[in-house]
Amino acid sequence: MSQATRGYAAHSPTSALGLFHFVRRDPRANDVVIDILYSGVCHSDLHTARNDWGGTVYPTVPGHEIVGRVVAVGSAVTQFKVGDAVGVGCMVDSCHSCGACAKGWEQYCENGMTGTYNSTDRIDGSPTQGGYSERIVVRQEFVLKLPQNMDLKGAAPLLCAGITTWSPLRHWNVGAGSSVAVVGLGGLGHMALKLAKALGAHVTLFSRSAGKEEDAKRLGADRVVISTDRSQMKAVSGQFDLIIDTVPYAHDLNAYTATLATGGTLVLVGFLGQQEPAINTVTLVLGRKAIAGSVIGGIAETQEMLNFCGKHGITADVEMIAMQDINEAYERMLKSDVKYRFVIDMESLKAQA
Amino acid sequence: MSQATRGYAAHSPTSALGLFHFVRRDPRANDVVIDILYSGVCHSDLHTARNDWGGTVYPTVPGHEIVGRVVAVGSAVTQFKVGDAVGVGCMVDSCHSCGACAKGWEQYCENGMTGTYNSTDRIDGSPTQGGYSERIVVRQEFVLKLPQNMDLKGAAPLLCAGITTWSPLRHWNVGAGSSVAVVGLGGLGHMALKLAKALGAHVTLFSRSAGKEEDAKRLGADRVVISTDRSQMKAVSGQFDLIIDTVPYAHDLNAYTATLATGGTLVLVGFLGQQEPAINTVTLVLGRKAIAGSVIGGIAETQEMLNFCGKHGITADVEMIAMQDINEAYERMLKSDVKYRFVIDMESLKAQA
Repeated sequence: MSQATRGYAAHSPTSALGLFHFVRRDPRANDVVIDILYSGVCHSDLHTARNDWGGTVYPTVPGHEIVGRVVAVGSAVTQFKVGDAVGVGCMVDSCHSCGACAKGWEQYCENGMTGTYNSTDRIDGSPTQGGYSERIVVRQEFVLKLPQNMDLKGAAPLLCAGITTWSPLRHWNVGAGSSVAVVGLGGLGHMALKLAKALGAHVTLFSRSAGKEEDAKRLGADRVVISTDRSQMKAVSGQFDLIIDTVPYAHDLNAYTATLATGGTLVLVGFLGQQEPAINTVTLVLGRKAIAGSVIGGIAETQEMLNFCGKHGITADVEMIAMQDINEAYERMLKSDVKYRFVIDMESLKAQA
Repeated sequence: MSQATRGYAAHSPTSALGLFHFVRRDPRANDVVIDILYSGVCHSDLHTARNDWGGTVYPTVPGHEIVGRVVAVGSAVTQFKVGDAVGVGCMVDSCHSCGACAKGWEQYCENGMTGTYNSTDRIDGSPTQGGYSERIVVRQEFVLKLPQNMDLKGAAPLLCAGITTWSPLRHWNVGAGSSVAVVGLGGLGHMALKLAKALGAHVTLFSRSAGKEEDAKRLGADRVVISTDRSQMKAVSGQFDLIIDTVPYAHDLNAYTATLATGGTLVLVGFLGQQEPAINTVTLVLGRKAIAGSVIGGIAETQEMLNFCGKHGITADVEMIAMQDINEAYERMLKSDVKYRFVIDMESLKAQA
């Protein structure tokens, strides 16, 4: 079986994504070959396509919220069989020998995990290419099982937006009786609301603007606090065990740390850069509070999240698009004009002449 | 017994501390009257005397590292008797009804703990005055027992410098196998080295300048890393489970967060203010690292620390001074010219005509 594949790639920081022909590797003994059905669209895809973080190697095929069906397996694959509904997230490999990998924290692999795209295969050195494509070949340890009867379109964003919010909820022991707040209602934020609620927490959405109440409550919020309203912020002073901050740009954290309970943590999952305005340490010191960061989650943790979502009937709220609409979708994503995640129906690519 | 007392007070932000006559309250049923033998000198004393943080009410008698002997007890006091060697730290009361107090976190009392000085008695509203004085009256719940045979001069700084470093070591579960670093070798830093070592951790001192190796190793450091040396810093990248940062002014934290292990925490115990230069969140997010704060410790935790110090023969390294030398000591403290804590021998005040 030839692994000739078509995808949509960025060819430079400034060009639109367009059709790209490439060849996936022949499956190794422990590889799974996946026919891609759906691929979620993450802000990271756009940042990589446009080289916002530097380091993009072109052409690059984005996409790390991948759902598909197994079409072939290598001789050593024991966990999957042809026809299985599976997922692939942000990683396709890690060293499996460092302390982090030993703990199941492949996302923090001390030797560097292998990204699903814009990374380099650990064995043959070839560039990895992501989910905006017809098929993908991934070693079985990085393939996730999708629960039976899960809606596959809404499942795709669980592989990044889902696990990115699940991991801190679990790491900081959120459960019944926890008080959790979420900053920002986008792809990550809407998953944080759903997951925190299903874990039994009392859930608050911080929003800069009114008008999100109905949607937020439908998604799992018990309450919406307008973060620009001083009296509303004061009313929730010292309340939250955990704040999941999904905002993808530098913003003032001091108003939020004031709403943490003693010993609480604000965890950044969306912003990489210089934290400005400056953090005032008084609130941290006098309340044993912390500002932390977190990125995606480990493979076992991702499987745990998928199983949890299967049990609780949770998937992302998605807007389906055709592969050919990706450039327009990026522009809309920049304006937060999506509720709450674009997912590409890969049938559109397969139908392209 | 009259509670007429003499102390050394600041009478304004700019005047030298000088003799001050005042009257301690008559002991209530649950109060312990303590004849002060020694009082440690903390940076907070100087900041309060000079109104560096605002809010100082004059005259103010500093001192919250107090060691003395019980000379009288109220009718309801069950835990102490005349002649006991005791200590008093940074707090003399709290609400005892909030969630924090219920957890033994009186230092984070949601209704505000009562400071040993520059605070207000919860019952009669009188100003609290600290340990630069002949005697003090404190409710028994905020009086600590000193282990038998502990050197009382070196014990005084345990009541603030000791517990301030002990609390984060315990809260972040430092023990055998932990890798701990300490930033800054002053009153707090030298206690952090001693306590972390005695807890079984591998201990590193970060220092900006060479020449501290011998002292640091004597105090408990296994290693000294010069923080201005890029190659030395790179060599300890990703190593520490916990960094205790005792530096009392704004400084760059990014070089230190890079040395945290995945999941590690840098805890600020010395600096209250705007964190500049800005924190780069990349290190936090990509390593699930945290920047936290911590202040002193609870009463039960302080007793635990004292008992631990008694068992391990730990006290502070002190330089004894007379009460009359306090203003000169402040100037020397500002230049870090003390190894590692000044302690006032209160005999000098009692002998003053």
